[in-house]
Amino acid sequence: MSSEPEILPSESSTVASEESGEKISKKAAKKEAAKLEKLRRRQEQEEAARKTASISLEDDEYSSNYGDVTLNELQSTPDPKAGKWREAVEGKEWTDVSDLVEEMVGSEVLIRGRVHTDRPVSSKLGFVVLRESGSTVQCVVSQSETNKVGTNMVKYLRQLSRESFVDVIGLVVLPKEPLKGTTQQVEIQVRKIYCVNKALAILPLSVEDAARSELDIEKSLQAGTPAARVNQDTRLNNRVLDIRTPANQAIFRIQCQVENFFREKLLSKGFVGIHTPKLMAGSSEGGSAVFRLEYKGQPACLAQSPQLHKQMAICGDLRRVFEIGPVFRAEDSFTHRHLCEFVGLDVEMEIRKHYSEVMDLVDKLFVFIFTSLNEKCKKELEAVGKQYPFEPLKFLPVTLRLTFAEGVQMLKEAGVEVDPLGDLNTESERKLGQLVLEKYNTEFYILHRYPKAVRPFYTMTCADDTLYSNSFDVFIRGEEIISGAQRVHIPEVLEQRSGECGIDVKTISTYIDSFRYGAPPHGGFGVGLERVVMLFCALNNIRKTSLFPRDPQRLAP
Amino acid sequence: MSSEPEILPSESSTVASEESGEKISKKAAKKEAAKLEKLRRRQEQEEAARKTASISLEDDEYSSNYGDVTLNELQSTPDPKAGKWREAVEGKEWTDVSDLVEEMVGSEVLIRGRVHTDRPVSSKLGFVVLRESGSTVQCVVSQSETNKVGTNMVKYLRQLSRESFVDVIGLVVLPKEPLKGTTQQVEIQVRKIYCVNKALAILPLSVEDAARSELDIEKSLQAGTPAARVNQDTRLNNRVLDIRTPANQAIFRIQCQVENFFREKLLSKGFVGIHTPKLMAGSSEGGSAVFRLEYKGQPACLAQSPQLHKQMAICGDLRRVFEIGPVFRAEDSFTHRHLCEFVGLDVEMEIRKHYSEVMDLVDKLFVFIFTSLNEKCKKELEAVGKQYPFEPLKFLPVTLRLTFAEGVQMLKEAGVEVDPLGDLNTESERKLGQLVLEKYNTEFYILHRYPKAVRPFYTMTCADDTLYSNSFDVFIRGEEIISGAQRVHIPEVLEQRSGECGIDVKTISTYIDSFRYGAPPHGGFGVGLERVVMLFCALNNIRKTSLFPRDPQRLAP
Repeated sequence: MSSEPEILPSESSTVASEESGEKISKKAAKKEAAKLEKLRRRQEQEEAARKTASISLEDDEYSSNYGDVTLNELQSTPDPKAGKWREAVEGKEWTDVSDLVEEMVGSEVLIRGRVHTDRPVSSKLGFVVLRESGSTVQCVVSQSETNKVGTNMVKYLRQLSRESFVDVIGLVVLPKEPLKGTTQQVEIQVRKIYCVNKALAILPLSVEDAARSELDIEKSLQAGTPAARVNQDTRLNNRVLDIRTPANQAIFRIQCQVENFFREKLLSKGFVGIHTPKLMAGSSEGGSAVFRLEYKGQPACLAQSPQLHKQMAICGDLRRVFEIGPVFRAEDSFTHRHLCEFVGLDVEMEIRKHYSEVMDLVDKLFVFIFTSLNEKCKKELEAVGKQYPFEPLKFLPVTLRLTFAEGVQMLKEAGVEVDPLGDLNTESERKLGQLVLEKYNTEFYILHRYPKAVRPFYTMTCADDTLYSNSFDVFIRGEEIISGAQRVHIPEVLEQRSGECGIDVKTISTYIDSFRYGAPPHGGFGVGLERVVMLFCALNNIRKTSLFPRDPQRLAP
Repeated sequence: MSSEPEILPSESSTVASEESGEKISKKAAKKEAAKLEKLRRRQEQEEAARKTASISLEDDEYSSNYGDVTLNELQSTPDPKAGKWREAVEGKEWTDVSDLVEEMVGSEVLIRGRVHTDRPVSSKLGFVVLRESGSTVQCVVSQSETNKVGTNMVKYLRQLSRESFVDVIGLVVLPKEPLKGTTQQVEIQVRKIYCVNKALAILPLSVEDAARSELDIEKSLQAGTPAARVNQDTRLNNRVLDIRTPANQAIFRIQCQVENFFREKLLSKGFVGIHTPKLMAGSSEGGSAVFRLEYKGQPACLAQSPQLHKQMAICGDLRRVFEIGPVFRAEDSFTHRHLCEFVGLDVEMEIRKHYSEVMDLVDKLFVFIFTSLNEKCKKELEAVGKQYPFEPLKFLPVTLRLTFAEGVQMLKEAGVEVDPLGDLNTESERKLGQLVLEKYNTEFYILHRYPKAVRPFYTMTCADDTLYSNSFDVFIRGEEIISGAQRVHIPEVLEQRSGECGIDVKTISTYIDSFRYGAPPHGGFGVGLERVVMLFCALNNIRKTSLFPRDPQRLAP
């Protein structure tokens, strides 16, 4: 349903074209993908049919060691005699798959995981790889003198559909040779296995396909045996399957950490986290990109940002505030970087005397976030990079600041003419990003003193030149990510500016009135959480960093 | 605009009736308040008129030491010669009012604060109390041999309206006797004073009135000289003034800390913070209390909770998730405890075998939050208690758990008959709270195994009795604050249950489908941030703990 064409494999596709997303033949790629998809589905259906073919499991002396857990047992029955699973797990604690390490060799463990892949070898030997979040471990069912399970257990193993949840009780052992296909380097000799919950035999997408690395797909194409690439709409339509891939598991853990580091730094600097209403009378910042609704008989809208209320919190003496919450934009933006609903990270603070105080904070805050991510999310960044290879972000210990005029000059010198009093378009921003990278060796920088005409009505004009404003944008890898400014705190000036910008002053009267009761000079900025993660990891689409994205064509799942 | 009548002073009002809010004569109280309000306004107008009467300030040799800061100076001009304020503050750092302590006596400081109160004594002596957040300090303007400011500075002081922002440069001194009216026990001998931003001379409410303690109001009533009490609608209509009171400054800092402690504990237990969409197709949990809107041509609604998506995150292998975000309820609830928009703290987690695992978390999490609040928010809790006296919450180190049936039995023994398969009403909940407090000495407890009929369709039925469910509510001071349960993770059962509950299965098909691809047993709970703060501090209205509350009649400011 997404509007942005997913880049699909084709002879001409390369990693480079994947990033720009505009050069390959879309038609050919789609056809190729459809063919692959068809083939894959047929294989899966055959596999599933084979599996669900009723395998008769006669009772044998080991039949209490395997089987399906009943609903009754899963309804939290306190009775350990309620079924064989209950009896088997009674008094036992579960071990996380990620905790299965060499030190545990020799001990019996109880683990729960999804059937990632399985491979019955013979009537007496079978393998199943269990997955818990991003971690995988190989489990072996075999009949031997010390492990007297019947052949029926191997048969039972065959019945298990991929993505089903199973509990395994078994012995931790060292495999004869290092395992390539699993994250954990020990193996489990299965003593008991129970299916906690069955997945459908035929799934809309295979997690293995969804997790395939871009490099592997490239290689397979070059080898003439193209591996399936799951397209973006299939992923998003079946997001609960898609987010099970190691890269996605990592992306949403990184996202959570960005938020944690953001909060940690701000709290340490005396900021207060607040929550402002998302339901408002009027429109939060004017413009047409606003969702409207009826609120108990009166017209209302969804906040396009916490802008007005975070400033009101400053007028209410909270001094330095931040907010993390949803932001709604009804824009018809069909790009790789726009969503109709995203998570805004917003900051507003008193200024003592210069708007550089706000830029100082941006500098310290984001250098802290980037450094912390690199230090504390190594595993996660690696998992993302395994599927979507990327270079670590280049940033300086103290963030580079250029004025807008300096940026315009750099572009001019590189032969790009832009309006010195207009805004930069996406292309010029990218170009400037390249120039800055070449000259200053950073992919993260601040551009400030924007022309007044391209900033919102509440932006403070420069003292020395009324054509410019005390505002800034911040860029990562050539894309704008943060917008900030000193705000107008004089009600009369606000009234005049909103009038000039075509906003009906009446609709924002409670906002303007807030500045009549004494208001400190102040400023702040806003940044999209999804964009931070997208650009830090150099991902090509913001839908990859939104758990359940909303764009002009997508309202589900 | 709020529907709930504010409790106003009257002869019959007592602190007890203030808490219940239902017993005093509302009409008499309103009349009384209106009279007081009128009187107060008149006084203020006279005062303001007196102030704004133009006081001619002839230039004297000290005129660079006081005056209004110009807009130009506040536009972040980099030029230190731009004005006398710029020149005066050049190279100086501001000290926070809360940092002004005895150790600083003898040093010169630069501080910024609001004019809290002022008192010109003579032509050569004047006082002004400056306030920054909840902290206040007395500043003295006097003419002496060592402090040669002219009498014009005292005149200038007189012009300053309350709530205006001023910068003061002065010497920290010890006052001759301890100060009663300020939080800081040092005084500032003013050398320079500049008005950074002027407040209107007449304000819609006085912060001093808004901050008056309930006890003082009681005393004043008993003494026959009633002090003004600002009613709730006046407060909420002018929230930017109202939140400047020490109690409100504390309330929103406590709220931020509740969130911090909530996150801290969950992150330490491996939970991932997520953000789910607030814009949805269909209605999130059925029912009529949903805000509807048009989303790019298709019908949509605002999420009544992150219920469905947080469960889908569990199906997506995030294992243990939490979310902090707005929740929208279009209910027509005109009570002290309902809002149309509030901040939901939501948790969802895999269950290994029993829903008590979820209650274990509730226990540990909230005992941690309460303990941490008591330890780390002493100053803030004191500030709240100063205006709204309350007893600390009584809670046990390990939270008491009772079954619903046990609760019903306790009520029965106390002579209160309730339907053993129905829900408790507010009155029975309060009564049970009292009984539990008497018997177990706790105001925080869990009531579980609720009748199935009163819980949502996605609640798991008990294994041993289909009339009951694996669900719980949690109470603070006799009021429900948390609802939680084990969820149905079997799609067929979900379909059946949603049908039984009158929900069109088609509208939640993406949700139900999520469980077809393998789903672990899981459970979770939700709690309102505003309610936690309200009940922890025994406040009588949830509007006190919402920064900009939204109720059926309030959509502004």
